[in-house]
Amino acid sequence: MAEEGFLTRKFGEGVENYYAGSPLNRLAFLRTNHTYLSTALQHPSTRFILLNNLDPLASTPSTLAFLSYSDISDLIANPYATSEQQLLQTFTSTVDHPVLIFLGIDESAAPEHSIPTPDNKYTGQAYFSLDVTPYPSKSYASTATSLLLTIKSSYPTHEFKTARKDLNLGNEHAAIYASARSLTNWNVTAPYCAGCGQKTMSVNAGAKRACPALDGGVETRKCGSREGVHNINFPRTDPSVIMAVISSDGTKILLGRQKRWPKYWHSTLAGFLEPGESIEEAVRREVWEESGVTVGRVIIHSSQPWPFPASLMIGAIGEAIPGKEDIYLGNDPELEGARWFGFEEVKEALAVTTGGLYDPLPEGYKEGMLRLPPKTAIANQLIRAVVLGEVHLAKI
Amino acid sequence: MAEEGFLTRKFGEGVENYYAGSPLNRLAFLRTNHTYLSTALQHPSTRFILLNNLDPLASTPSTLAFLSYSDISDLIANPYATSEQQLLQTFTSTVDHPVLIFLGIDESAAPEHSIPTPDNKYTGQAYFSLDVTPYPSKSYASTATSLLLTIKSSYPTHEFKTARKDLNLGNEHAAIYASARSLTNWNVTAPYCAGCGQKTMSVNAGAKRACPALDGGVETRKCGSREGVHNINFPRTDPSVIMAVISSDGTKILLGRQKRWPKYWHSTLAGFLEPGESIEEAVRREVWEESGVTVGRVIIHSSQPWPFPASLMIGAIGEAIPGKEDIYLGNDPELEGARWFGFEEVKEALAVTTGGLYDPLPEGYKEGMLRLPPKTAIANQLIRAVVLGEVHLAKI
Repeated sequence: MAEEGFLTRKFGEGVENYYAGSPLNRLAFLRTNHTYLSTALQHPSTRFILLNNLDPLASTPSTLAFLSYSDISDLIANPYATSEQQLLQTFTSTVDHPVLIFLGIDESAAPEHSIPTPDNKYTGQAYFSLDVTPYPSKSYASTATSLLLTIKSSYPTHEFKTARKDLNLGNEHAAIYASARSLTNWNVTAPYCAGCGQKTMSVNAGAKRACPALDGGVETRKCGSREGVHNINFPRTDPSVIMAVISSDGTKILLGRQKRWPKYWHSTLAGFLEPGESIEEAVRREVWEESGVTVGRVIIHSSQPWPFPASLMIGAIGEAIPGKEDIYLGNDPELEGARWFGFEEVKEALAVTTGGLYDPLPEGYKEGMLRLPPKTAIANQLIRAVVLGEVHLAKI
Repeated sequence: MAEEGFLTRKFGEGVENYYAGSPLNRLAFLRTNHTYLSTALQHPSTRFILLNNLDPLASTPSTLAFLSYSDISDLIANPYATSEQQLLQTFTSTVDHPVLIFLGIDESAAPEHSIPTPDNKYTGQAYFSLDVTPYPSKSYASTATSLLLTIKSSYPTHEFKTARKDLNLGNEHAAIYASARSLTNWNVTAPYCAGCGQKTMSVNAGAKRACPALDGGVETRKCGSREGVHNINFPRTDPSVIMAVISSDGTKILLGRQKRWPKYWHSTLAGFLEPGESIEEAVRREVWEESGVTVGRVIIHSSQPWPFPASLMIGAIGEAIPGKEDIYLGNDPELEGARWFGFEEVKEALAVTTGGLYDPLPEGYKEGMLRLPPKTAIANQLIRAVVLGEVHLAKI
């Protein structure tokens, strides 16, 4: 293929996809500093996002509601009152704690809302998320239930709203929610050590789980996760690839559809990357498995955190190999259909029909028109990049 | 920054990094087809890579050794003799099975070594990996020990060799080994369900673990991983970012060094992506945490599977923001040093000093010269792309 051309791409600021672009500095290196976290937690200006079954408390469909420490301290007191090392020593698996995550600081906040880091180098307003779900099996269930009632009466207009259904968050709030949702979900769904099967404890301000050597003062099983290099007690992020494939003549784009999608709705192909694969290989494998088309050159366009539950969408542009562009759906039942669409048809759809899967039909829509995902989906950005010429094939 | 310019990039075939470029078709959609797997497993031409504590059996430092089913059938018989559903029903956690992984087929193999897929559409020589480590705690430990002795006497020149120390595999063997190593390591280090703490079972030909509803015929705990959308029983791949950062004037590249590295050895900065982050954000965060430098524009260059144990290295090029290019190492103790290097110094090092961390000093090396990672590291490709002009800054 090298003889035929090369892909060129222009970059300005780059694409910032929805769920990316957090205004917060994570200050990852302070996650074990309980003195700092303790101050941050209890500062009157510190903001708390509440999650109930992963739905965030929102003041409007586009705005998260932020509560204060005094609103939620009944449920958590101060988990940073002693050091992480001391907490590991006194771990007792029968006592449950709601998932609390330090999300970072907003350095653009006014000085009166800000706290300094221990070295006085950085200052900002602190953000945490707290899981207030009253899981019946947890030892704090009744306290969580009471808290939910109090919040309902104190803030009658706030509501827990479901992402991708009732919410349409602005970019910055979406990005803050993305981190809170992924990390909370991981802490909640993976409470046992995959290495030894024992209960683990949330540490590093919610960004890691540790397998304690003691439970209620009694020594637990030996566990490999306590020594050396390992990954099992760190939160997982699942890389997946999503790709706009251009026909070898540079005039068509490959789109597919799943059975459960509304009529005429299509999107780019996508799938999870597998162990031992590069992104480029995963793009080629997924396209071949799902559509039968063979892809040669691949470039990586941009990425998007996708907190449902913990994916990283890696957006790519691929070029089909001449003579290997026939659609075949028989390998994999993933797609109901896949088709090559001419750029003009796609441009018209971009102008008229984009929208969420469950949105009503847009104004001006005519039966039979191709429907495409909204701008908040990286698929839309990839399709746009290809058919509007941001990425194009050039001969050399 | 948009006013100042854009990054342009030329693409030919694209970069294929070491550990990528597997010659095998994974045939992921046949991983539950035990009839096919059973035939593939027992075909006399089918090739088995053996792993002992993750070290592969090798015939030379650059070549994997491939054994046949008859060489290893004492240890595994045929785990695909019944369906996956039946195996889940009869799961007994006290009986251990060595990790066996179907890696895929080589479609370029001669017909006499090949088997067809059930639909007769694809044909190729099958590859599996088998973990023969005689873990003392496993019920098959003595059989594994005997097998190791038999192999030693049948193939006296083959040896289990350690990657990045005794091995220098060719590209295709490195890629085959990368998948085998990541998946084996994951099956071995994560044998318990993170959702409920019970022992899991390797399914999907080694590419998934399932939490069975029965253990020895007795019902186990309820577990969320058995229903709905979840990720916990799929192998994890940890995305990490690695980036060449260009100074805002386009003349220098930022490199850092860890304390444990040999004198004068530097590489690009790198770190794990966090939940809720895009690749571009992770690049900016890691560079800032480790070096104090603020990055604006980011483009993604290429990627590399890194099976130690299960990372995906995502290579990027970043551009520093004018006035925010001073080095500060005080945030994070990760690096011993970081510095801006002029392109000329780096070009000279690329020509003379690249090599593995533990390689002897190259010929022509003069004390004090910058030392850089070898071509098998994506860092080398990124440095090369920047200083040799594959990616360059262009004004608009």
